[in-house]
Amino acid sequence: MAENDREITDCLAEEENASRVYASTHSHLESLTPSDRDGNSTQSSHRLLAYSDALLSIIATVMILPVAHTKVQDDEELNESLQQLLTTKIAVYLMTFLIVTVAWTAHIRLFQVIEQIDDCLALLNLACMMLITFLPYTFSLMATFPEKTLGILLFCTCVIVIGMIQAMIVVYGFSRPFLLNEQIQLSDNRPFYKWHILRVISKVPALCLFAIVFSFIFTPVSYILLAIVIFLPYISQTARWCYGKATGRLEQPVDSVLFYSYHPNEPLSKDRVEAFSDGVYAIVATLLILDICEDNVPDPKEVQDRFGGNLVEALKGFGPEFLAYFGSFATVGLLWFVHHSLFLHVTRATRLMGLLNTFSLAFVGGLPLAYQLTHRFARSSRNELEAVQISCVIIFLAGLFQLAIWVAALFSQSSTLHPYARYGGREHAFMFAKLALYPCVTLGTYTLTCIHSRFSASIFHLMEVSVPLAFLLLRLAVRTARGLLGLLLSAVRGARRGGVPENQISRRPLGEEET
Amino acid sequence: MAENDREITDCLAEEENASRVYASTHSHLESLTPSDRDGNSTQSSHRLLAYSDALLSIIATVMILPVAHTKVQDDEELNESLQQLLTTKIAVYLMTFLIVTVAWTAHIRLFQVIEQIDDCLALLNLACMMLITFLPYTFSLMATFPEKTLGILLFCTCVIVIGMIQAMIVVYGFSRPFLLNEQIQLSDNRPFYKWHILRVISKVPALCLFAIVFSFIFTPVSYILLAIVIFLPYISQTARWCYGKATGRLEQPVDSVLFYSYHPNEPLSKDRVEAFSDGVYAIVATLLILDICEDNVPDPKEVQDRFGGNLVEALKGFGPEFLAYFGSFATVGLLWFVHHSLFLHVTRATRLMGLLNTFSLAFVGGLPLAYQLTHRFARSSRNELEAVQISCVIIFLAGLFQLAIWVAALFSQSSTLHPYARYGGREHAFMFAKLALYPCVTLGTYTLTCIHSRFSASIFHLMEVSVPLAFLLLRLAVRTARGLLGLLLSAVRGARRGGVPENQISRRPLGEEET
Repeated sequence: MAENDREITDCLAEEENASRVYASTHSHLESLTPSDRDGNSTQSSHRLLAYSDALLSIIATVMILPVAHTKVQDDEELNESLQQLLTTKIAVYLMTFLIVTVAWTAHIRLFQVIEQIDDCLALLNLACMMLITFLPYTFSLMATFPEKTLGILLFCTCVIVIGMIQAMIVVYGFSRPFLLNEQIQLSDNRPFYKWHILRVISKVPALCLFAIVFSFIFTPVSYILLAIVIFLPYISQTARWCYGKATGRLEQPVDSVLFYSYHPNEPLSKDRVEAFSDGVYAIVATLLILDICEDNVPDPKEVQDRFGGNLVEALKGFGPEFLAYFGSFATVGLLWFVHHSLFLHVTRATRLMGLLNTFSLAFVGGLPLAYQLTHRFARSSRNELEAVQISCVIIFLAGLFQLAIWVAALFSQSSTLHPYARYGGREHAFMFAKLALYPCVTLGTYTLTCIHSRFSASIFHLMEVSVPLAFLLLRLAVRTARGLLGLLLSAVRGARRGGVPENQISRRPLGEEET
Repeated sequence: MAENDREITDCLAEEENASRVYASTHSHLESLTPSDRDGNSTQSSHRLLAYSDALLSIIATVMILPVAHTKVQDDEELNESLQQLLTTKIAVYLMTFLIVTVAWTAHIRLFQVIEQIDDCLALLNLACMMLITFLPYTFSLMATFPEKTLGILLFCTCVIVIGMIQAMIVVYGFSRPFLLNEQIQLSDNRPFYKWHILRVISKVPALCLFAIVFSFIFTPVSYILLAIVIFLPYISQTARWCYGKATGRLEQPVDSVLFYSYHPNEPLSKDRVEAFSDGVYAIVATLLILDICEDNVPDPKEVQDRFGGNLVEALKGFGPEFLAYFGSFATVGLLWFVHHSLFLHVTRATRLMGLLNTFSLAFVGGLPLAYQLTHRFARSSRNELEAVQISCVIIFLAGLFQLAIWVAALFSQSSTLHPYARYGGREHAFMFAKLALYPCVTLGTYTLTCIHSRFSASIFHLMEVSVPLAFLLLRLAVRTARGLLGLLLSAVRGARRGGVPENQISRRPLGEEET
């Protein structure tokens, strides 16, 4: 070992720029660390936001657990009372997901105004997080006991306290202007901004206060108010758009900090959309292994008694669980991969793209459940067919919403996409192929299972295996297709126009040393 | 709403630098997105690594679930057969944590060599992650059935396949040099580096191959080999240190890429240590709410039958769980806060600091369990006292290892710490106070519970409430203490030396407008 190292040292003596690179890394690190302004130590908010994103993404997906752990017996028909229970639980999951993403969006906006933090803000933010993590529980209480006021009370109290903490963060931030966004910091209208932001923040708690009052008088009004809370950003956006259309006043893009930070149309921070999505993908990918690690280690005594000490025999019963795990991990991983590729081409995320991303993530959360169902029923039973088809629909929708993010980005491509990914750009066709792969494959699988319903599970397994391979070979396939298309087009045009070679397509690198 | 916006637009017309700031954000985003080299689209590996860190941190903590969900009856003595079961499970948890962190360290080293990725590497990395997530299960199988070879076989096969995938990543990376670390890319000795790195990677799979062979001959040898696998980095580090001491040859710090990336003493990437720690803190903070959301929503029928429809009454039974949740969330959050503050001052993490961080995180993982125990037993019972004391010990150790990270950083402070956090620096005393708070408080609580064992739970609750307050007031307290100390010192010296004012300490900002 030591000899080895000496050898390397000699080899590396000639590397001149080693220390130069280190120095640049070093200065990069330094830029992330606290600066000193007016004797107060301020810190970059980067890590605080990453931690908040991790917490929020876990909380957003937590309500899938009651769905996933619903006991489904093999002999029971999926279409009975169980179905109703599942529907309720799935509705709770989807609503929780929306609620948490609304809270997350508010959190993004808040920390687009306050860009530096100090210890006090970090602690206030942690308190805020604690209350947000409690929201799913209060909501599921509300859904289980819709006629009781306790659920509404708890939920609204949480929201009001969160609003109060956010207001405290704003007031604290404005009392220490060096913590603020540079533009607000340099502006003369700071008090105006402060009151404007506080007014925006107070809207949701005010609605919740009304909901509490009405919960004692007439509960349905409370629920309507809470629905408004969740959909307020989208309602107001639509209303403003309609108003704009009706009065003929087109919205002009205003490059100002308040439009950037407290406006329903504002773009979301791309970094935070990525961090939140990563969190959701990570927790969903590992949901099944959490169960497997906990439940699927057989009891030594039972193995001795029932299987005569044969461990392999005892583990065979868990086979479907392992298959489900690998299938769901691979699917979630590949959907993450598509998402990752997509956001490499995105320069900033609009509000609509954020919403579509939320929908896509919400379906991704349902995947482990779907995969578990496909392996739980007897071969070739009607339940199995249904489970396989439900899985196909979930993957299809998750993929479709990813595709929709891209379409939404294409609509305002000059501000949202890199030049080479725009329509007709170098990476355009390849990106489209990546995004279309899952929707196409699942649509095909669904159709096949309808025709050959007896082999539904086999078809599904075949899909599971073939998709990763398809991703590996995708670039090659797209290049071949584009090359062929280019040849075809040039042949057609050449025949029509009389021999002017079309080299716009063939000029692009087609098969250089890469698979 | 629209009127409001027009008002804001007017206000912001004077903001000149709005577009400038946007432009700088924009260029920052652009730097994160794919660059085009030789017609291949390479991507920054940043997000891939963040996702891997999220997956690995969840997997590292997953084995705490079987510990946390062990059924503990109130009437049972903690010191019986249950204790043995718990000990086994805790040992499995700690070993899994170590195994996953070893895999994580290997992953860091690999992607310190390969700095750019493309689609193929991203997919290979996902395959690698999938196998790593399976390691905890194989290990717990091994621990439950120590005399069977199946566990060893599965574990070793996983490790060998992971090693093969890593080797593929290295070979692929070296065949496309633009993906590599800049220094290796520019070096003349690339083939040598390649073989050296492959040799390092192949060590662990080779040991596992031997372990498989020996598992059929004589199992204990296999276990010894596996223990070597896990502790190899630490053993070789210690051996080299001893060898260096024995031969009197002091290790000189070599600023070379191979020492930076394939050497037991190499520093770890600070970003990745932070990302991994964030993941562990986030998943641990939410572990209890996962259970609460799933189990603690009462059944409507049961509420009607047993509590006469009184929901509040029905929820009262879950009170201890909620208290445990808030207690553990606050403690984990504050430990995260301390960790965050510490790493703001750290410029780079040595291997030793990484190891201490791992130990600290391993204890943090035990917190939810400890908190749940403190609320599960009858008031003033012997079990309750033990549970409270165990919680104190866990928090104490988690805090102590954080303190140890700082001490380790102080030993080589010129390369690991920012100037103002070094010994005698501006932030030194405050950082020390933050790190020492939890160990001191828990030590105090432990001592108090020994004396007043009847009030153990009350003392513990008092601690839970007082610690967040202590953090808020800590800066004030430290400044007051330093101010008093400064006054005292200057008075003493003034009396001794005859009136030369000591202004070294009082020159520092002591009470400016901050709490």
